[in-house]
Amino acid sequence: MGWIKVVGIGPGDINDMTLKAYNVLKECDVVVGYTTYINLIKPLIEDKEVISLGMRKEIDRAKKAVELALQGKNVCIVSSGDAGIYGMAGLMYEVVHKENIDLKIEVIPGVTALNAAAAILGAPVMQDFAVISLSDHLVPWQVIEKRLALSAQADFVIVLYNPKSKERPENLMKAQKIIMKYKKEDIPVGIVKNASREGQQVIITTLKEMANYEIDMRTIIIIGNESTYVENGKMITPRGYVL
Amino acid sequence: MGWIKVVGIGPGDINDMTLKAYNVLKECDVVVGYTTYINLIKPLIEDKEVISLGMRKEIDRAKKAVELALQGKNVCIVSSGDAGIYGMAGLMYEVVHKENIDLKIEVIPGVTALNAAAAILGAPVMQDFAVISLSDHLVPWQVIEKRLALSAQADFVIVLYNPKSKERPENLMKAQKIIMKYKKEDIPVGIVKNASREGQQVIITTLKEMANYEIDMRTIIIIGNESTYVENGKMITPRGYVL
Ligand SMILES: C[S@@+](CC[C@H](N)C(=O)[O-])C[C@H]1O[C@@H](n2cnc3c(N)ncnc32)[C@H](O)[C@@H]1O
Ligand SMILES: C[S@@+](CC[C@H](N)C(=O)[O-])C[C@H]1O[C@@H](n2cnc3c(N)ncnc32)[C@H](O)[C@@H]1O
Repeated sequence: MGWIKVVGIGPGDINDMTLKAYNVLKECDVVVGYTTYINLIKPLIEDKEVISLGMRKEIDRAKKAVELALQGKNVCIVSSGDAGIYGMAGLMYEVVHKENIDLKIEVIPGVTALNAAAAILGAPVMQDFAVISLSDHLVPWQVIEKRLALSAQADFVIVLYNPKSKERPENLMKAQKIIMKYKKEDIPVGIVKNASREGQQVIITTLKEMANYEIDMRTIIIIGNESTYVENGKMITPRGYVL
Repeated sequence: MGWIKVVGIGPGDINDMTLKAYNVLKECDVVVGYTTYINLIKPLIEDKEVISLGMRKEIDRAKKAVELALQGKNVCIVSSGDAGIYGMAGLMYEVVHKENIDLKIEVIPGVTALNAAAAILGAPVMQDFAVISLSDHLVPWQVIEKRLALSAQADFVIVLYNPKSKERPENLMKAQKIIMKYKKEDIPVGIVKNASREGQQVIITTLKEMANYEIDMRTIIIIGNESTYVENGKMITPRGYVL
């Protein structure tokens, strides 16, 4: 029987991948993943069997990985960023638990989009923070609204994954409205599209203005807390040291 | 004038470092950091000038990096995990902004403790989450209490950094009590000490029992949400797919 490694490949650039991720991708027999992510690591896996499946095919990908491992193959199933943050790690375990299969699964951690985007923006996440996905595909919108409101009340730095989908473009404006009830409208907001990938775009704006920019599903948004400031083109949330 | 790169070296194992972090450490002239972190990467930087300073010397480390860069040296200042999460990135910018120095600073993202610990535990952070440091050295304890209470009410997965210091050992039990007001006491909790380092210890327990274990400042705690379960020794928060 083969093994399955759920590999976080980082935000995009191969140099943001860990040494371990790089090495297991070289070591395995098959790579399974979403087409876009497979393309990001193409040069690394030219000699491998590759199974790339489209969007919303997460369950098929996980099942395919199991099938291949049961055939004796060593399988890497890839997620962008870290596989444990809105990635494939959970589903991989769920499929194996549900079907009661005794397979060796290991998660190889990676740099998640939030860390990549924060590094590009400066240091916006130096204090306590909340991470919320605006996709209501798997979580009811009321739950998301509640989390937005409570996070804003707690003065967390708020990080938004999946900020805007084609099907539900209005979620971002709804989220903005809720957060503005509790946070000042001129709080700095960083928007990073394609962090560490081709087409990287960086915008630093304010809570009030953030929805006026072109935001899509390859974008992550970081909303500051009360003490966040912008200087020299960088967004900084001071940790609290007295200089 | 030299440059400063603020480098996240990952949780400990050199294989969890990114290729970029590895390469800039090889490239630079001087490495500045907290003694423990310098020791983690010793084999990598044997031929470098190394300035290692003890705990709570963060400001001195940042100022030293500036001094060296102004002398024309290329400096790596290291943080464990990711430098943007309770690390040196913010302070580095703050020092430079305060003194109005025009230096090139770049943050090299890394795998933060939360991602490393989550990978070891299984997949406990697959839904929205809040990250809170229990250290009240830089943030007032009332603010931390408020964040704990609101996060528990939002049913976030809650990740606790700096869970227990020698000076304030009672903070963890206080936090537990607050969270138990809103989360069920048998919710799974993962405790990882020295994730991906020598001395790694992993415990999966419950909210009610979590404070009975040996927890220190090299430990991170992940508290599940309503749907988190434990199976086959792994802690999983399902993403919400219907299998
Ligand atoms: C399904 S989630 C996957 C997250 C991934 N597992 C991670 O750890 O970064 C997809 C969302 O992550 C964010 N994201 C992932 N990679 C990104 C990148 N390179 N730049 C900006 N946002 C990114 C976007 O918000 C996107 O909608
Ligand atoms: C000052 S913070 C630094 C966090 C670091 N910048 C990061 O991104 O992981 C120190 C806290 O991080 C957590 N931590 C860092 N490395 C860890 C590891 N290898 N295992 C467990 N916890 C760790 C612990 O909670 C510790 O008290």
